[in-house]
Amino acid sequence: MKELKVELGDKSYPIYIGEGLLDQQELINPFVKGKQVMIVTNTTIAPLYLEKIKKLFSCFDIQTIILPDGEQYKTLETVNKVFTALLENHFDRTCTLVALGGGVIGDITGYVAASYQRGVNFIQIPTTLLSQVDSSVGGKTGVNHALGKNMIGAFYQPKCVLIDINTLHTLENREFSAGMSEVIKYGIISDIEFFEYLEKHIVELMERNEKNLIEIIYRSCQNKAKVVAQDEFEAGKRALLNLGHTFGHGIENSLGYGVYLHGEAVAIGILMAAKLSVEQKYINDDDYQRIEELLLKAKLPININKKINTNDILKSMQVDKKVILGVMRFILIKSLGNAFIIEYNNENTLLTILNNFIKSENN
Amino acid sequence: MKELKVELGDKSYPIYIGEGLLDQQELINPFVKGKQVMIVTNTTIAPLYLEKIKKLFSCFDIQTIILPDGEQYKTLETVNKVFTALLENHFDRTCTLVALGGGVIGDITGYVAASYQRGVNFIQIPTTLLSQVDSSVGGKTGVNHALGKNMIGAFYQPKCVLIDINTLHTLENREFSAGMSEVIKYGIISDIEFFEYLEKHIVELMERNEKNLIEIIYRSCQNKAKVVAQDEFEAGKRALLNLGHTFGHGIENSLGYGVYLHGEAVAIGILMAAKLSVEQKYINDDDYQRIEELLLKAKLPININKKINTNDILKSMQVDKKVILGVMRFILIKSLGNAFIIEYNNENTLLTILNNFIKSENN
Repeated sequence: MKELKVELGDKSYPIYIGEGLLDQQELINPFVKGKQVMIVTNTTIAPLYLEKIKKLFSCFDIQTIILPDGEQYKTLETVNKVFTALLENHFDRTCTLVALGGGVIGDITGYVAASYQRGVNFIQIPTTLLSQVDSSVGGKTGVNHALGKNMIGAFYQPKCVLIDINTLHTLENREFSAGMSEVIKYGIISDIEFFEYLEKHIVELMERNEKNLIEIIYRSCQNKAKVVAQDEFEAGKRALLNLGHTFGHGIENSLGYGVYLHGEAVAIGILMAAKLSVEQKYINDDDYQRIEELLLKAKLPININKKINTNDILKSMQVDKKVILGVMRFILIKSLGNAFIIEYNNENTLLTILNNFIKSENN
Repeated sequence: MKELKVELGDKSYPIYIGEGLLDQQELINPFVKGKQVMIVTNTTIAPLYLEKIKKLFSCFDIQTIILPDGEQYKTLETVNKVFTALLENHFDRTCTLVALGGGVIGDITGYVAASYQRGVNFIQIPTTLLSQVDSSVGGKTGVNHALGKNMIGAFYQPKCVLIDINTLHTLENREFSAGMSEVIKYGIISDIEFFEYLEKHIVELMERNEKNLIEIIYRSCQNKAKVVAQDEFEAGKRALLNLGHTFGHGIENSLGYGVYLHGEAVAIGILMAAKLSVEQKYINDDDYQRIEELLLKAKLPININKKINTNDILKSMQVDKKVILGVMRFILIKSLGNAFIIEYNNENTLLTILNNFIKSENN
């Protein structure tokens, strides 16, 4: 087992990464404060891991709520369902919420924990690669609004994050690849050695070799924890983690959730940001090729093969959270392993780039 | 003008109390961070003060949302309406929300500010006595759930609180009295001199003498700010501010919102807590009489003259936020100016007390 700590003063918390951690009561039980535990999970994960997790928390009074699976349920309405379950079961402010599932479950549960009785304990048990390397760490919680992704939420830290890589063996290939997208992102923005490690081991990784998995999850969490410790509320440096996300959210919003997985949209977004970085003469074509090749080997999409209007993508990008006073902000790549943030508003260039990535049969 | 500061490290903020402050741009404008200002108010307050407040923020891009008036609208649904207004107007994370109204508007707006894009600026402009002395100070924000009052929310501090006592001249008598209930509370829990000041000046106060008003609002905020600075998240001492609220919330929940004003329910709740304090031999009948007399002179109800089932009140009290692991907690009065918290679960005594306060024509 590997362990690392997100350093946030009295809100610091550990991340445990290993095999078979879902069986280790003594590891996790100290993080439950009161007696009441609500396990929040979804219809996909419940048949696979709920019984195991119930055993894990068998010393406590457990209740369970099983939500429908999918980004389209990451809404205030679902949040309210969880509030109702908590109130119906008389959960008080000493209770603990357990998020068992991927990023959507973690985001919803975290926001419920932030808001229920003005804040209760919660524990993250991420079961997808994407949530293990990204959303379960750093305290960003929240839900979508019909008019924009992740527009409602809170910065709210868990008491601990428990990552059992055995859960990755039940993960669909497409979901696994989507997680790799965020892993590769860490290499590009701040860790060239890690990028090279990924280039070298991508084949074993795609075969889900356990040693390699623990290593990349550890290094991803380490990279993220470092940034979060410096900038919990995204006043500055934390924004670098959004590489590919301005474009990616634009794609997700225009197509509707569920057409692309978040990680897939981010992969295309990373390449778009890389293309803009080439245009702006920061990186060269070789760097671009290396990124594209790694994403390809991770079985991620490198263009949009859906019917989509690029003006719609641009419009969606303009209501993203990263827009400040009408000016869009992008994370660009200065060199591999070194990203930075710029304000950029040239709609023509952005539309040209977007159009370059459309490979739909309709174009 | 009087000024005081809520000391919360980098979340500290000033409270300004005086006459005609709603005309002083130079006082308030420095607290607006970006260019976008959303004024959140209701149908009662808008005709009275909205134009004034628009002038106050005329240097910025102003939008307004006017909500229906009443505790029954303090819901997640209303919160979502404000999110929609913000998104439709492309409000970004540098925007500022202004809560113009009573406690309900402040609570809703504060929670929206806490949650919109994971947190934006907000300014409190409370227009009722209740919100000026209580809810606008200390960062408790939130909304009700069908199954319980204030069950959804966040601790989220405003950038400043602007109290213009001129707004009290348009306040209905019943609303004014409801505010006096929380004012009297501060005297009982921690400030015997203030209690005596109130006894001495209650007649001028009920005539809304300006000098006296500024004094009691200042002292109430001072009492509250001191407690909040010591215990922002209500881990301990802050709970004393809940004197009368376990009973009060029980009454409000059982009757439905709007039958009693919050301050009226709290007045009855304070007397119930005082009665329990007499039962437990902390204060004597004379102390009880002094409290009752002051509440009476403030034109507050001292018993329940509505059709109500005391078992329902007790049940509601048992799902209050102050219940921890099934045990109810009450604020009792050790002596006038000195309150403390106890766990108390004797249902028979509680029912006897509740029954003593029923003066309904149906009993």
